[in-house]
Amino acid sequence: MTLLDLEALDEIALGATVLGTGGGGDPTLGKLMAQQAVARHGPIQLLPLDEVPDEEWIIPTAMMGAPTVLVEKIPSGTEVLDAFRMLERRLHCRAVATLSIEAGGVNSMIPMVVAASLGLPIVDADGMGRAFPEIQMVTPTLHGVSATPMALADEKGNQVLLETPDNFWTERLSRAVTIQMGCSANIALYAMQGAIAKRALVKGTLSLARDIGHTLQTCREHKRDPIEALTALLHGRRLCEGKITDVRRRTERGFARGEMDIAGTGRDSGTQCKISFQNENLIFWRDGQPEVTVPDLITVVDEQTGLPITTEALKYGLRVVVLGLPCHPKWRTPEGLALVGPRYFGYEIDYVPLEQ
Amino acid sequence: MTLLDLEALDEIALGATVLGTGGGGDPTLGKLMAQQAVARHGPIQLLPLDEVPDEEWIIPTAMMGAPTVLVEKIPSGTEVLDAFRMLERRLHCRAVATLSIEAGGVNSMIPMVVAASLGLPIVDADGMGRAFPEIQMVTPTLHGVSATPMALADEKGNQVLLETPDNFWTERLSRAVTIQMGCSANIALYAMQGAIAKRALVKGTLSLARDIGHTLQTCREHKRDPIEALTALLHGRRLCEGKITDVRRRTERGFARGEMDIAGTGRDSGTQCKISFQNENLIFWRDGQPEVTVPDLITVVDEQTGLPITTEALKYGLRVVVLGLPCHPKWRTPEGLALVGPRYFGYEIDYVPLEQ
Repeated sequence: MTLLDLEALDEIALGATVLGTGGGGDPTLGKLMAQQAVARHGPIQLLPLDEVPDEEWIIPTAMMGAPTVLVEKIPSGTEVLDAFRMLERRLHCRAVATLSIEAGGVNSMIPMVVAASLGLPIVDADGMGRAFPEIQMVTPTLHGVSATPMALADEKGNQVLLETPDNFWTERLSRAVTIQMGCSANIALYAMQGAIAKRALVKGTLSLARDIGHTLQTCREHKRDPIEALTALLHGRRLCEGKITDVRRRTERGFARGEMDIAGTGRDSGTQCKISFQNENLIFWRDGQPEVTVPDLITVVDEQTGLPITTEALKYGLRVVVLGLPCHPKWRTPEGLALVGPRYFGYEIDYVPLEQ
Repeated sequence: MTLLDLEALDEIALGATVLGTGGGGDPTLGKLMAQQAVARHGPIQLLPLDEVPDEEWIIPTAMMGAPTVLVEKIPSGTEVLDAFRMLERRLHCRAVATLSIEAGGVNSMIPMVVAASLGLPIVDADGMGRAFPEIQMVTPTLHGVSATPMALADEKGNQVLLETPDNFWTERLSRAVTIQMGCSANIALYAMQGAIAKRALVKGTLSLARDIGHTLQTCREHKRDPIEALTALLHGRRLCEGKITDVRRRTERGFARGEMDIAGTGRDSGTQCKISFQNENLIFWRDGQPEVTVPDLITVVDEQTGLPITTEALKYGLRVVVLGLPCHPKWRTPEGLALVGPRYFGYEIDYVPLEQ
């Protein structure tokens, strides 16, 4: 049995932020909440996806909203328990575990708060293998799993239960509610029984995040090149290195949207790169041409330390390396690309796998 | 025992539209739905407020949104049953009756659809004695009754359950959901037990609406002056007569907002009148000065027939009479005026009772 202690949470938060491709919220905040819960209640059991009993329920938990807002609107940590319990009541069930629906910074940690506080295990899986900005953008959608019943709760005592005909309607209604709640909400959704969860989820995401975090920390301790280690571990490639010369951001319809410009340095001298984001990094452009797009992962890391930089922390003058990492194969199917490909986000670009 | 048949529904729909002061939705549509339900299931029992057992639950039902939208987005009539049943499930109760939360056109009739379809009585009361645009604007709010749990349902299969810390939050969240549902939603809210209902509601509203409707129809049959009969019945007064010269309207944040201008004729020749509305008529201005304001009732009727004209039917060239009618005394308290007085709607005007 694997137990997640304070050190494991450090590693997972770090690794999930690499997978979060800029989104998923500030990892520090989520990690502090999770570590506080573990310090109080003890370590969390990591439950392999294959070991979830077929008939039992598991309930993912998360925060929804613009990560730029999360930084200033600190959750108390009990609202997410409210959402989790509201969904249990609706389903007339007791869930045997919680999990991350997305492997982003804060959203890798919120389920840890729930797991530690309630003495539940956390499933070693997620619904994306990365982070995405919209509710329906999860592999369970590809397997016909309904996002609803979905529960939302805020720190003011508001609680909302949604039932929708499809996961696009869930996104639409929950986004409107989240905006009213102050652009961030605590949520529980995509409740699944073990049998479907084994088919619908991305397996091993927390273990992978931990490996990533561990790799980055080991590189720091042993003064090894973190960027080379990351690309080797994740079968990715270095897209460019350079200096951020501009970040244009706006909080729009509940999302942190914008673009950032990078002036290439070193081997990329003379090239102008750009990243478009909507919570997560969506498109990497080189000299005006799209080079890597969703659903492949575009992660911005610090040039020296290899530490990932979230959307809200992007700023003028940072020296960064942009990494491209291949997405889970489920996203490269026609159904996957219809759900999360560049055209869905409004870019008239065909997806070309990173490796080509 | 009073039974409401097709003729009674005709009269109530008409009378409630007078009390609706321009809002509450198109009465024709609601009446057709209610009459269809009564034709299929039989007449509806009218339950006096005093006869609701103290321990039993009653659940108001309504439509929420911009009345201008209701005209084109015709409800099927089953969604409101969905909302009603969702609230019953949440409360683990079976309600003994439904009722109107507001005495507006469509909202006097929606509960009739529920009552007829489910074989329940309808309570002879409402939560305003008129119509108001926002959820918290009901006499139960003055008595500390919570609007939530509140259920919303639409024709697409979306169902939402809200729990909020106060009725202003209910308005805020349910408005956002209603807008996403297409600017109209079927709702059930302000569930109450008989004991509190007797203190918190406006008693006898359906009987009054029926009297108003009966009076208007009798005047038509006997060629009597309907406007004189209305002002006598409702202790109101004739504010002006004239021709509508302009209507400026916009559907804004889920409301039908705007103003209309009236050029005085007859005894009002030479005066320029204006009405500001937000679903309901809010302020009556004469020559630039406010003369009658919420919470008193400002109702626009046809000059010849005395038939009420709803906000969405206002148009250039109509010859109208504007009536001022006193509101329920609960609204004239400091608490009542804080909730629905002119200042709440953004007008820097003190409320002066119509009679002064």
